[in-house]
Amino acid sequence: MEEDSRLARWEQSTEVPLALASLAFLIGYAIHVLAQHITDGWRDLSFAVMLIAWAMFGVDYAVRWRLSGERLRFVRTHWLDGLVVLLPLLRPLRIVKLYEAVQRRHGEPRFSLHARVITYAGLSTGLLGFAGALAVYDQERGAPGANMKTFGDALWWTCETLTTVGYGDVTPVTRGGRLIAVGMMACGLALLGAVTGSFSSWLIQVFSQEGDTQDTRHGEGPPER
Amino acid sequence: MEEDSRLARWEQSTEVPLALASLAFLIGYAIHVLAQHITDGWRDLSFAVMLIAWAMFGVDYAVRWRLSGERLRFVRTHWLDGLVVLLPLLRPLRIVKLYEAVQRRHGEPRFSLHARVITYAGLSTGLLGFAGALAVYDQERGAPGANMKTFGDALWWTCETLTTVGYGDVTPVTRGGRLIAVGMMACGLALLGAVTGSFSSWLIQVFSQEGDTQDTRHGEGPPER
Amino acid sequence: MEEDSRLARWEQSTEVPLALASLAFLIGYAIHVLAQHITDGWRDLSFAVMLIAWAMFGVDYAVRWRLSGERLRFVRTHWLDGLVVLLPLLRPLRIVKLYEAVQRRHGEPRFSLHARVITYAGLSTGLLGFAGALAVYDQERGAPGANMKTFGDALWWTCETLTTVGYGDVTPVTRGGRLIAVGMMACGLALLGAVTGSFSSWLIQVFSQEGDTQDTRHGEGPPER
Amino acid sequence: MEEDSRLARWEQSTEVPLALASLAFLIGYAIHVLAQHITDGWRDLSFAVMLIAWAMFGVDYAVRWRLSGERLRFVRTHWLDGLVVLLPLLRPLRIVKLYEAVQRRHGEPRFSLHARVITYAGLSTGLLGFAGALAVYDQERGAPGANMKTFGDALWWTCETLTTVGYGDVTPVTRGGRLIAVGMMACGLALLGAVTGSFSSWLIQVFSQEGDTQDTRHGEGPPER
Repeated sequence: MEEDSRLARWEQSTEVPLALASLAFLIGYAIHVLAQHITDGWRDLSFAVMLIAWAMFGVDYAVRWRLSGERLRFVRTHWLDGLVVLLPLLRPLRIVKLYEAVQRRHGEPRFSLHARVITYAGLSTGLLGFAGALAVYDQERGAPGANMKTFGDALWWTCETLTTVGYGDVTPVTRGGRLIAVGMMACGLALLGAVTGSFSSWLIQVFSQEGDTQDTRHGEGPPER
Repeated sequence: MEEDSRLARWEQSTEVPLALASLAFLIGYAIHVLAQHITDGWRDLSFAVMLIAWAMFGVDYAVRWRLSGERLRFVRTHWLDGLVVLLPLLRPLRIVKLYEAVQRRHGEPRFSLHARVITYAGLSTGLLGFAGALAVYDQERGAPGANMKTFGDALWWTCETLTTVGYGDVTPVTRGGRLIAVGMMACGLALLGAVTGSFSSWLIQVFSQEGDTQDTRHGEGPPER
Repeated sequence: MEEDSRLARWEQSTEVPLALASLAFLIGYAIHVLAQHITDGWRDLSFAVMLIAWAMFGVDYAVRWRLSGERLRFVRTHWLDGLVVLLPLLRPLRIVKLYEAVQRRHGEPRFSLHARVITYAGLSTGLLGFAGALAVYDQERGAPGANMKTFGDALWWTCETLTTVGYGDVTPVTRGGRLIAVGMMACGLALLGAVTGSFSSWLIQVFSQEGDTQDTRHGEGPPER
Repeated sequence: MEEDSRLARWEQSTEVPLALASLAFLIGYAIHVLAQHITDGWRDLSFAVMLIAWAMFGVDYAVRWRLSGERLRFVRTHWLDGLVVLLPLLRPLRIVKLYEAVQRRHGEPRFSLHARVITYAGLSTGLLGFAGALAVYDQERGAPGANMKTFGDALWWTCETLTTVGYGDVTPVTRGGRLIAVGMMACGLALLGAVTGSFSSWLIQVFSQEGDTQDTRHGEGPPER
C-alpha cells in the first residue's frame, strides 16, 4: 500500500516533465533529420536534447520499477514503457498522457468512451507516423535509386502506407528504410484499425439511435431489425 | 421545452431547402471544375450558387445554435454540422437527410436497420468520393508530371483509393491534391468500413437465418455452432 | 398457405435445373471470351446456351413472383434474384444453392455455422471473381496501351484486387474494364470481408477453446481474461 | 476412453520431436533455396532432412488417425494436420505447439487470452510468410523480367503483401510464383486479421479500463458512454 501511493505520487509529478521530454525528443530528432544546413553548435544542441530526454525516460523506468516492488512481472505488465525506453521514436506515444493531464486539469467535461479511443489512437497514429516518416527519410535521403526526394514525399508515403493504399509511386529502397517501414506497417495498422473500428462502430451506433428517435417521433412503433 | 419544439419546427421546415442547397453547391462546384469552356456569365452564376448555398448553411447553423439555448456544448454535439459549414465539399453528406425526408413523406415501409446503415454510409461515401474527385482533379489538372489527365481518371483513382486497393497507375503529384487525398483516405475508409462491416454482418445474419430455416424444415434440430 | 406450399414445391423442383443453367451460362461465357479461334457454329451454340440460361432465370423469377402472391414487396425481399436476372454474370452466386442441395441429398453431417459461412462466401467470391475476370479481360483485350495481355494476367489482377493488395503491375485501362472493376471491388470486398471475418472469428474461438482445454487439463483453474 | 488416453500420451511424447522436425524442414528448405554455392553433399543432406521430416509428419498423422478410432470424421476435424502433411511449407505452423510446450514446462504464469491469440497468430504469420517468401523466391529467381532480385526483395514483398499495402515495386511474374502468392494472400490475410483484430480489441479494452480507473481515482463517478 505504501509503495502504491509513492508510485502514484511519482507518476503524478513526472507526468508533465516526461511529456515535455518526449516532445523535446521528437523536435530534436526532427531538427537532426530535416535541418541540414545548421551550424555544428545547433546540431550538438539538438543531439544533447535527445540524449537528455532519453536519459529521463530511463531514470523514470528504473524508479518506477524500484517503487513497484515487483521483479520481472513489472517488465511484462509495463512492456510499452520498456519499448519506449529502447526505441526512442515510439516516445511520442507518451504525449497522449499529456493530453489527458491537460484535459483533467481544466475540469472540462470528459468525452465519451468512443471519442476517447478515437482521439488517443488517432493521435498516437499521427505521432508514430510523423516519427516513422522522419526515420525512413533519414535512411532514404541520398540513397542511389531512391524516389523519396523530399520530406513531403516521406509524409505522403507514410499516409498511403498506414491506410494500406500503397500506390507505389514512392517506396523505400534501402534496407534500413524497409525495416522501419515493416515496423510502421505492423504498429500503424493495429492503431489505425482501432481508430476506424471505433469510428465505424460509433457511426453504426449513431445511425441506430437516430433511427430509434425518428421512429418514436413519428409514432411508427419500435425499429424493425 | 419551448426551445425544443421551436428547434424541431425549424429543422423540419429547413430540411428540404438545405438539401437542395447542398445539391446546388455540388452541381455548382462540378460546373466550376469540369466546364472549362463556358462563358464568364455561366461561370459567375455557378459561383453565385455556391456562395448562396454556403450562406444558407451558415445561417441555418447560427439559427439552430441560437434556438438550442446552448453555448459551447452545441459546437461539440453538432461538430458534423460545423465541419460542413467550414468545409463546403463535405456538404453532400446533408443529402442523406433528403433521402430520409422523401422516404418518410411517401409513407413506404421502412428498411431494416442494417439496410439503412448501408444505404446512408454508401450514399455518403459516394457523394464524398465524387466531391473529393472534383477537388483533386481541380488541383492536378495541368500540373507538371501529373498522370491524372481526365475526370474519368480522377473517378477511377477515387474508387481504388476508397477501397484501399491503390494500384498506383494514377496518383496525385501536387501538394494540394495529396492533402485532399489524405483527408479522403481518412474519412472514406471509416465510411466504407461502416458499409462493408454492416454488409458482411448482414450477410452472416442471412446465412445464419437460412441455416435455421433449413434445419427446421428438414427436422434436423437446432443449428450446430 | 396454399401459395406457400406451391412456391416451396416450385423452388424444390427448379433447384437443380437452375443451378445447371447458371453453370452453363458461365461456361458459355467463358467459351465466348476465351475461345477465339472456334468456328462460328460453336460460337452460335455458346451464345444460344447463354440466352436459354438467361431465359430460364427470367421465367423462374416471373413464376415465383406470381406464386408468392405479393406485389412490389417481392422485388425488395428477393432483390438478389432480381439482380441475377439483370446482371447475368452474378448468376454464379446461384451455384451456392446447388452445393447446399447436393449436401442435403447425401445426408452427410452438416458443417458448423462458421464453416458454412466461409464456404458459401468463399465459393461466391471465387465464382464472382472468375466471372469478373472474364468480363474485364473481354473489355481489355486488344485495347491500346493495355497491360492485361493474357487471361492469366486477368486472374492475377482479380486476386490482387479482391484482397485489396493492388500491386498495379496489371490494371484495366478501358472505361468498360474500369466500370466492371469498381463493381468487383465493391461486391468482392464485402464477400471477402465475410470470409476473413468469419475465419478470424473462428480462429479466435478455436484458440480460446484450446486455452480452456489446456487450463483444465493441467488444473490451472479458469482461463484468465 | 482407452483410445483417448493413448492418443493423449502419443501427442504428448511426439510434441517436441515433431516441432524439431518442422524446424528442420524449414531450415532444410531455406538451405535448399538460398545456399546456391554449396557442394552436392550438403545439398543432398538438406534434401534428406526435408524428406525425413515429411515422413515423420505422415507417420504421426497415420498413428493419430488409427488411435482416434474414427474414420472420415478424423480427416474433417483434423484438416489442418492433413493440410500440413500435404503442403510441407505450412509445416511451420506446428512450431506454435513447441512454444506452448516450452512455456508449460517452465511453469511460468500464462499470458492472457488476447496476448496468446496475438502471439500464436503473429508467430504463424511470420513463419508462413518466411516459408512463402522462400517458395516465391525459388520460383522467381532467374525468371526473365523478374524484379525480385534478392531474398531481401522477397521478404520485403512478403511484408507488403501480407499487410495488403502492395506498392508494386516488387511483384512475382512467373505462374508458379503468382499461384503461391495467391495462397499467401488468402492464408496470410486471415491470420493477420486475427492478429490486428485481437490487438485493436485489446487496445480498446485497455483504454476502456484506463478510463474507468481514472474516473474512480478522481471521484468523477462511472464512465460516461
